[in-house]
Amino acid sequence: MEQKVLEPKLQQALEKFKALDEKITHYSSIIGLADWDQKVMAPKKGRHVFAKAAGTLRTEVFKLSVSPEMGELLTTLTLSANSAVLDEATKAKVREYKTFYEKSKSIPADMFQDYSVLTGQANDAWEEARANNDFGRFLPYLEKIVEYKRKFAEIYGYEDHPYDALLDEFEPGLTVKILDPLFAKLRESSVRLLNRIQKNGKGTRSEIFNQAFEVEKQKQFNRYILPIIGFDMEAGRLDETVHPFAQTVNIGDVRLTTRYLKQNVRSALFGTIHEAGHGIYEQHINPEYEESVLQSGASFGIHESQSRFLENMVGRSKEFWNYFYPKLKETFPGQLANVSVDEFYRAVNTVEPSFIRVEADELTYNLHIMVRYEIEKALIAGEIEAKDLPSIWNQKIEDYLGITPTSDTVGVLQDVHWSFGGIGYFPSYSLGNLYSAQILRKIQKDLPEFHQLIENGRFDAIQDWLKENIHQYGKLYTPNELIVKVTGEELNADYLVQYLEKKYSAVYEL
Amino acid sequence: MEQKVLEPKLQQALEKFKALDEKITHYSSIIGLADWDQKVMAPKKGRHVFAKAAGTLRTEVFKLSVSPEMGELLTTLTLSANSAVLDEATKAKVREYKTFYEKSKSIPADMFQDYSVLTGQANDAWEEARANNDFGRFLPYLEKIVEYKRKFAEIYGYEDHPYDALLDEFEPGLTVKILDPLFAKLRESSVRLLNRIQKNGKGTRSEIFNQAFEVEKQKQFNRYILPIIGFDMEAGRLDETVHPFAQTVNIGDVRLTTRYLKQNVRSALFGTIHEAGHGIYEQHINPEYEESVLQSGASFGIHESQSRFLENMVGRSKEFWNYFYPKLKETFPGQLANVSVDEFYRAVNTVEPSFIRVEADELTYNLHIMVRYEIEKALIAGEIEAKDLPSIWNQKIEDYLGITPTSDTVGVLQDVHWSFGGIGYFPSYSLGNLYSAQILRKIQKDLPEFHQLIENGRFDAIQDWLKENIHQYGKLYTPNELIVKVTGEELNADYLVQYLEKKYSAVYEL
Repeated sequence: MEQKVLEPKLQQALEKFKALDEKITHYSSIIGLADWDQKVMAPKKGRHVFAKAAGTLRTEVFKLSVSPEMGELLTTLTLSANSAVLDEATKAKVREYKTFYEKSKSIPADMFQDYSVLTGQANDAWEEARANNDFGRFLPYLEKIVEYKRKFAEIYGYEDHPYDALLDEFEPGLTVKILDPLFAKLRESSVRLLNRIQKNGKGTRSEIFNQAFEVEKQKQFNRYILPIIGFDMEAGRLDETVHPFAQTVNIGDVRLTTRYLKQNVRSALFGTIHEAGHGIYEQHINPEYEESVLQSGASFGIHESQSRFLENMVGRSKEFWNYFYPKLKETFPGQLANVSVDEFYRAVNTVEPSFIRVEADELTYNLHIMVRYEIEKALIAGEIEAKDLPSIWNQKIEDYLGITPTSDTVGVLQDVHWSFGGIGYFPSYSLGNLYSAQILRKIQKDLPEFHQLIENGRFDAIQDWLKENIHQYGKLYTPNELIVKVTGEELNADYLVQYLEKKYSAVYEL
Repeated sequence: MEQKVLEPKLQQALEKFKALDEKITHYSSIIGLADWDQKVMAPKKGRHVFAKAAGTLRTEVFKLSVSPEMGELLTTLTLSANSAVLDEATKAKVREYKTFYEKSKSIPADMFQDYSVLTGQANDAWEEARANNDFGRFLPYLEKIVEYKRKFAEIYGYEDHPYDALLDEFEPGLTVKILDPLFAKLRESSVRLLNRIQKNGKGTRSEIFNQAFEVEKQKQFNRYILPIIGFDMEAGRLDETVHPFAQTVNIGDVRLTTRYLKQNVRSALFGTIHEAGHGIYEQHINPEYEESVLQSGASFGIHESQSRFLENMVGRSKEFWNYFYPKLKETFPGQLANVSVDEFYRAVNTVEPSFIRVEADELTYNLHIMVRYEIEKALIAGEIEAKDLPSIWNQKIEDYLGITPTSDTVGVLQDVHWSFGGIGYFPSYSLGNLYSAQILRKIQKDLPEFHQLIENGRFDAIQDWLKENIHQYGKLYTPNELIVKVTGEELNADYLVQYLEKKYSAVYEL
């Protein structure tokens, strides 16, 4: 291959850009570790002061990302003559920083600082509000956060809908215009399917989960399956937290958490598989992207597609349990004595409307997301106000799920996201489901023996496909570019609709 | 109290200095957490790349500490007119930064960088060398490190002996001139006392430790004593590592590690008490110094005095075991069935020359330090060369301890310190012993019931004294100022000499 000779000025800009990217990525890696530590390891009394230390480093990353130096480098590197000679990875890095720079450069440093302080305090208020079923405790914070988010939307800029500016933070390129029809189709078909299941009247043996499953044995089982389904334990950890999550430090250090409940064996089981989906994605990223902004998943939606794919398409499949059920039964012989693998499979696919999103089944989960999506969209557009959220929330849950929350704790206060300012985040979850069904269709084309592989425990073959087609690229492609590259078409809700229809027709013999 | 009105220019300098101090301390706190994590938690595959991320932040701290801004602020704040109106804490902070700035400002950034890379690589080489008893594997690195250290000594500057410049890094103000007579007295009396013990021929029942002590039960016992002796578990943690250490994140987050060996119950026991001494010190620092450079112990020597005080003066006392032995016996009824508390006390105070410093008893420990001190001093002065260390080492061990190392692994290669460039560090350990005996004398004056308090488990009263007289001050005073303030005199070797004489006369009935 011919070595390109670059202009000295461009060469210099590239070197500076590489150094700045590396510094920002190094700091972000340390912040990632610190975030994990404070949730999983840090003793109580040091957390308050440590949050200030982490805040200092976080602010530094923000400053570097919107610095005049960054601005000048991005200008130089996007000059058309220069851009033409850059390699694909460098172009992607420039794209990532440019997007953030353009959005954030107009945010005054003190506004960023005030907003950071507000979201820090809001989390405590939210925790108290949720614990005491006291929406009023959280409301003043929520109102201010919504106010900031409306301002940010104006500063970031948008074409059609102010919410687009916020969506774009989590799913670059996504707009209300794209999302509305996708979600409408999914919502309508889900409500219809839910009604059919409920009218059909057939149940599953979900009562088998109303037993105690020893936590120590749950831990053993979770640690047993994790490497088998593809998570590299030498490049990661599994710990315990109240709210499970995955945190990347770098490609060789990806940390998962799960939650063991004696009375709910499903919680840790599917929580671990879900987080493993996130974790394996990051472990598989091309090492050439390490120490750069590309060292991370393409978007929140694509990331969620990988966790939901492993949790649902793989982990809630009949074949998965054909492979793992003997071992599970060996681990819990008493609890599962009279339960066949088929009954177990149906039980883990029980559909039942419930108040809490994170505990929802594969079908009703998306309806929970719709409620949040519609509320956020209207909030940012100024069509509704924060103070009215409890009644709006309850009405929508009733409309879609046919049940009414018995308190704000299990209603509008259940999720942490708004307290840290994550408005625009929720759609990622359903996007993940949509992407994952579209990817499932493609993987089944490439690997017709897909379900056979699962049944034989050949998760390596499946992970190799995911690595080859999705994981390795990190942030090289935008989410839209990636889904087109992988599946040959843009995001299409039909695949998830058909998947859910087919799956539950079988489970519930519709 | 009258509010001082400061010149606007001074006021401005103070605010900038405070912000810079806070930023450096915040970053250092994060680096502390990261160092702990990489030793205790991080999975194998991510460590190499993470070391680069941590290095970036470490370099940033170095740059901030020797930045022109720092230089100007220090100049402004040390102008005599300004200095006169500063409060005690600010003066101490200025002193701390000025010391580092003056020493380090002349070190070129690329020299710092090259040296950092070298010590990073040297650690791996040392680990291999030690594992394979192959001094030649480590020698080229050690030679380069010695060369750097000789250069640093010249850059830092010194009055009498080049080694003074390195000592000062760990114990501000300490010189060969001060140390030589202190160490000579301690060495001579220790060698004499050792000879008397060996001639006397009386043994202890140290063979009771040649049994298996279940690790799980050791853990229970260690976790049982830790809060009783004063360590706040809500402001800290206890984990496991091969090499025990204490790491501070902030005053509310101090992390200890220990090592459990089935065949060596003493290792974890006294390791935990030792590290708790370090940890309690940091937990007790005045919260007003938090987020500043004062948020840390006065020096390595003073720090070691607190760990050695708790480990030896408290933890190896007869009264300590009068209090804790029933519980220990309850934990290990089989192993300790026929062992009286008096026999146990004597057994944990067995004197026996051995090759490994970290396993040495209270008496021979200092002789191990002398060997290292004399070697380092001669190395830096250019009187000996690194290649000759194995034979010099073995000769000195023979001279002081009467035994000859059977390999370099248990000889010159046993310690990690030189591989990270810590030449000048070792004397801190014996300084700690010297300080601790002097402090013991004083605490017994203030609390005549000192040993009674231990026997009654009233560690709170002892910790209150330590907090009040030593711990709370953090880095407010230099080590010399502190020991004078606490005990009324400068460091004096007589106290340790007398303490050892008295203790072992009793244990060995000399």
